[in-house]
Amino acid sequence: MRDAYSILERVRERRPLVHHITNWVTIYDCANMSRAFGALPVMAHAREEAAEMAGQADALVLNIGTLTPELVDTMVLAAQAANDKGIPVVLDAVGAGATRLRTDCCTMILKDAKVDILKGNYGEMGTLAGAQAKVRGVENAGLEGDPSDTATRLALMHSNTVAMTGKRDIVSDGSRRYRIDNGTPLMGSIVGTGCMAASVIGAFAAVERDRALAASSALACFGIAGQLAAKGAKGPGSFKSALYDEASSLTQEEVEALLAVDCR
Amino acid sequence: MRDAYSILERVRERRPLVHHITNWVTIYDCANMSRAFGALPVMAHAREEAAEMAGQADALVLNIGTLTPELVDTMVLAAQAANDKGIPVVLDAVGAGATRLRTDCCTMILKDAKVDILKGNYGEMGTLAGAQAKVRGVENAGLEGDPSDTATRLALMHSNTVAMTGKRDIVSDGSRRYRIDNGTPLMGSIVGTGCMAASVIGAFAAVERDRALAASSALACFGIAGQLAAKGAKGPGSFKSALYDEASSLTQEEVEALLAVDCR
Amino acid sequence: MRDAYSILERVRERRPLVHHITNWVTIYDCANMSRAFGALPVMAHAREEAAEMAGQADALVLNIGTLTPELVDTMVLAAQAANDKGIPVVLDAVGAGATRLRTDCCTMILKDAKVDILKGNYGEMGTLAGAQAKVRGVENAGLEGDPSDTATRLALMHSNTVAMTGKRDIVSDGSRRYRIDNGTPLMGSIVGTGCMAASVIGAFAAVERDRALAASSALACFGIAGQLAAKGAKGPGSFKSALYDEASSLTQEEVEALLAVDCR
Repeated sequence: MRDAYSILERVRERRPLVHHITNWVTIYDCANMSRAFGALPVMAHAREEAAEMAGQADALVLNIGTLTPELVDTMVLAAQAANDKGIPVVLDAVGAGATRLRTDCCTMILKDAKVDILKGNYGEMGTLAGAQAKVRGVENAGLEGDPSDTATRLALMHSNTVAMTGKRDIVSDGSRRYRIDNGTPLMGSIVGTGCMAASVIGAFAAVERDRALAASSALACFGIAGQLAAKGAKGPGSFKSALYDEASSLTQEEVEALLAVDCR
Repeated sequence: MRDAYSILERVRERRPLVHHITNWVTIYDCANMSRAFGALPVMAHAREEAAEMAGQADALVLNIGTLTPELVDTMVLAAQAANDKGIPVVLDAVGAGATRLRTDCCTMILKDAKVDILKGNYGEMGTLAGAQAKVRGVENAGLEGDPSDTATRLALMHSNTVAMTGKRDIVSDGSRRYRIDNGTPLMGSIVGTGCMAASVIGAFAAVERDRALAASSALACFGIAGQLAAKGAKGPGSFKSALYDEASSLTQEEVEALLAVDCR
Repeated sequence: MRDAYSILERVRERRPLVHHITNWVTIYDCANMSRAFGALPVMAHAREEAAEMAGQADALVLNIGTLTPELVDTMVLAAQAANDKGIPVVLDAVGAGATRLRTDCCTMILKDAKVDILKGNYGEMGTLAGAQAKVRGVENAGLEGDPSDTATRLALMHSNTVAMTGKRDIVSDGSRRYRIDNGTPLMGSIVGTGCMAASVIGAFAAVERDRALAASSALACFGIAGQLAAKGAKGPGSFKSALYDEASSLTQEEVEALLAVDCR
């Protein structure tokens, strides 16, 4: 994992265009965190332009946080356009398991397009893996059994990479398993850090073909920014402001000193 | 009103799920302020899932700030699902009186579902009460006559609780009248404090069955957070950041020292 | 350009209502920056009320950042209502040139309504002027030739005022050309400063009939707020917070000391 910082450096140098079709709650923060990490965000959800925009992007990030069936149809069109050009597709399965619509739409996207990196919290990934999972709204929730096994099973089901976020983040591509222990409880005190994490994963996947390495490096760097931001924070407001400051100025020293990733 | 802090404590302990169908301007801040006060926000506006989500929530907050007729139809479905399960429904009548659509949609929601707490500024509540009121865009505006009387009349019209916000907030359930003198002019210097107030009311109503007590306690605590945040603020940017910090860390001492609620 | 501060003063005194039909990414910041400069923002995009709202506003700001064909139809209705009453219309052509939909919709709006001030970055304005321009997502991009000539040509094409933003902002009404060298690179480090600039232009145009003077004064004042905010900023998070603080408290001394506008 000495690569984490080098991938970040590549993001800053190449400034990949990360196309989002995302939710209306955290759309600004998805864009702004992409920018803080050095990428160029673009948000375009009209059926008439989504595929065209995805086809010129370096990564596509889908997020069903405030989905409608029409928006999900557009996500599939964009994902197929990205697939055709080999552009990595990230799906953040926000609230899968909370309502039938959310679970069904995830299943449909996964069936109709290739999702390279499937992201969600323990409850969401557990739901999609068919495990016993509890989902309440869009909050992280319990998951029975070993979460690494769940992530691996889900990755094997879809021949892709699964990024499962929680107190400990887990990334699996079916064979390798990364455990990331970066981050801070303050990240859970503000809305949107999960969505932002998906955007950072998209930015990293745009410049690194090894999906599991890209996803785990992204989660580690984002978590490290959180740890640094937590230092002077007096609460969620000052923490969020500092999170942007730290994300945009992460140094090699900081990343290497704080990186807490285990791969096996 | 020694109860205000104890209701806040219950929010923090029980972490109620507050489902929002709200506007696209302040949707993030509605979610994030709910979280700061200890609740779990969820935003879901698709016709296909709104009722299902509302039915598992602890409170439903509707806000017509950027309404469309379709969105309002979905609000009614969600409100009816909440009504069926006894889940409290809050309606923030943003811009009622500014356009025919806004006034008509409020009237329709109030007719087709039970709104437990109707919230708005003086002009909006005055419009819905049939008083002489001026509304300009979504800004607070003048209202002729005694605002407490207007709030009470409106509460009696709908057999519910009315929360009317302004320099002095007024809550009436038709018999009791609360006057809340917490808050700071800086809250008017940023967009969205009115919407956030509705979210906080939703969180408090989720854990306190006395609607008028819940609404007035929520407005008092939110206003106190504002007063504390104003102390070191240099303008609307630093104030907003501090507002989140203070909202998430309100102590019993702070609430009891600053509470300015009068009930009769 | 001694007028810049006096126009700002008029905004603060008259508090013009600035109606936006804008994108879902920066909608909050468009509203909040309007407010910071002293205007009253209102966002209303429903077909059923957009014209009614525009007709009572003091300026209309359109922004195609997350356009759909339906939303653009509503923009045209609102612009026509504003035209009928002599209310200034600002169009921020976000991403023109990036997809066919964006370019076509700009062309359609410009054909079906009178846009008083057309705003965009070098690449977007270049595209609409028929120049060789590169657009990548919604980022600023290169433009061949003298940008002042492009702005002037575009202004003559539409008999309006063009505000072209970049490291140096350029405003032309076809005869006069303003060059504005205010601003700071940090404004490019956060998402949405371009959109906010359009909102500030709307606020200034609401109180100043000379469109080119209004637009250049708005860009100068916004840039000056950025320069002041950059002073203590540690990154994009603290910068954005300070940008609001400075925008809301700009003094005559600050504006006159930093104003960097050249007109010929």
